[in-house]
Amino acid sequence: MEKVANTSDSDNNGLTLESVRQSLIRQEDTIIFSLIERAKYPFNSPLYDHDSLVSPSMVESIVKDSEALQAKFGRYESPEENPFFPDSLPPLVVPPHNYPQILHPSGASININKTIWDIYFKQLLPLFVPKGDDGNYVPTAACDLQCLQALSRRIHYGKFVAEVKFIDAPEDYGQAIRAQDKDTLMKLLTFVSVEEMVKRRVAKKAMIFGQEVSLNDDDKKGKCKVDPSVVSCLYDKWVMPLTKLVEVEYLLCRLD
Amino acid sequence: MEKVANTSDSDNNGLTLESVRQSLIRQEDTIIFSLIERAKYPFNSPLYDHDSLVSPSMVESIVKDSEALQAKFGRYESPEENPFFPDSLPPLVVPPHNYPQILHPSGASININKTIWDIYFKQLLPLFVPKGDDGNYVPTAACDLQCLQALSRRIHYGKFVAEVKFIDAPEDYGQAIRAQDKDTLMKLLTFVSVEEMVKRRVAKKAMIFGQEVSLNDDDKKGKCKVDPSVVSCLYDKWVMPLTKLVEVEYLLCRLD
Repeated sequence: MEKVANTSDSDNNGLTLESVRQSLIRQEDTIIFSLIERAKYPFNSPLYDHDSLVSPSMVESIVKDSEALQAKFGRYESPEENPFFPDSLPPLVVPPHNYPQILHPSGASININKTIWDIYFKQLLPLFVPKGDDGNYVPTAACDLQCLQALSRRIHYGKFVAEVKFIDAPEDYGQAIRAQDKDTLMKLLTFVSVEEMVKRRVAKKAMIFGQEVSLNDDDKKGKCKVDPSVVSCLYDKWVMPLTKLVEVEYLLCRLD
Repeated sequence: MEKVANTSDSDNNGLTLESVRQSLIRQEDTIIFSLIERAKYPFNSPLYDHDSLVSPSMVESIVKDSEALQAKFGRYESPEENPFFPDSLPPLVVPPHNYPQILHPSGASININKTIWDIYFKQLLPLFVPKGDDGNYVPTAACDLQCLQALSRRIHYGKFVAEVKFIDAPEDYGQAIRAQDKDTLMKLLTFVSVEEMVKRRVAKKAMIFGQEVSLNDDDKKGKCKVDPSVVSCLYDKWVMPLTKLVEVEYLLCRLD
């Protein structure tokens, strides 16, 4: 994925292979900043406890209420944004913002946030935050929200990746789409060497952004605030595969 | 300010000169990350427009509602957190968290967020975000909230700085406090060489965290996402003077 030709960028409301590539690269910084900020706090398990099977955890309530607040002001009108709790969003309190319709309507509503939620809390979080409880629950939950939103935006950006790739090579993709052939679509979207490069780049970013900066370059550097190999693994195991999953799902209905 | 002796750290519920110093340094990273993230978006002026003199701007509504949400879950119980809209906060919906009482009660309630708000929107923001409007209002306002909260936490951390300095040298400060001598207190809290070092360090951090990271080190680096001289100026003109203002105000009532 993220294979990008620097020539023949097809224009589609300003969306080009190059603009998509630049957005994906810039989103790496946002994701890494948000992980570094979350790692400031320990795990803080009371955020994630359920009193009972039916009552929500504190982090669920905070994310749900934050999404409702942001929905009122139009966050989820943007085709780049996808809520974690889409069923309980209040109506707009501001005039609608007319975003250009770039995505094919059938694929625009793909939402795999349930998967992202489970991976983030069950698998990723324990890999990069220290054990413990410092009582800073709300700032911690605010960091979780940042991480979730950054990961969700990046992964669902697969819709734009798929759209721009389809526009660039409609014949190649069209055949596989008409055959509803997921495996061929996945092959068309997979570029192992590009994925290796992305993994190395995000690890390098984690090292650079997570270092302790001191005026004296000879000072012994502390360890990185977030282990670069965790960030590389996050991209390898979850971000890139889930983005490609979104791309395939999007393409499957691109000719509907 | 931020002068720190590495010896004779007085213990006060775990608060030491060294722990205060470490917190201030770590908070620099948070502030710079939040500025870099805000700089992703253009100014987006509709966020800041008032329909009339009495109705709030969209950013005011979003910050106010976000604070109310966070207050319910206990954000402002923490002595490190100070709301921008303290008059309209709802009661807790979770059991109270008993933070250790480190600050003297008279100084604990100092809140200069009105000043921070005005500086952030009127003076700082135009210095580091590009002109324009990309319609991403809610993500932009969420970044403003991050910046405001990070700056507010850093500046009000002056209460802890003042407390630990007072505990470390009660005689020196006591005399000026009893005389309610602001000028002497300001002199006791000011260390020009330390301030110069902080300014250089935050500029260096802005350069490192705001660079475009590429796998090939020979690639021409783009310009920093936030001008390092703006971050240095932010600390010089606003963060350090306002922190010292909080420190002086705190000390003036430290013997009440």
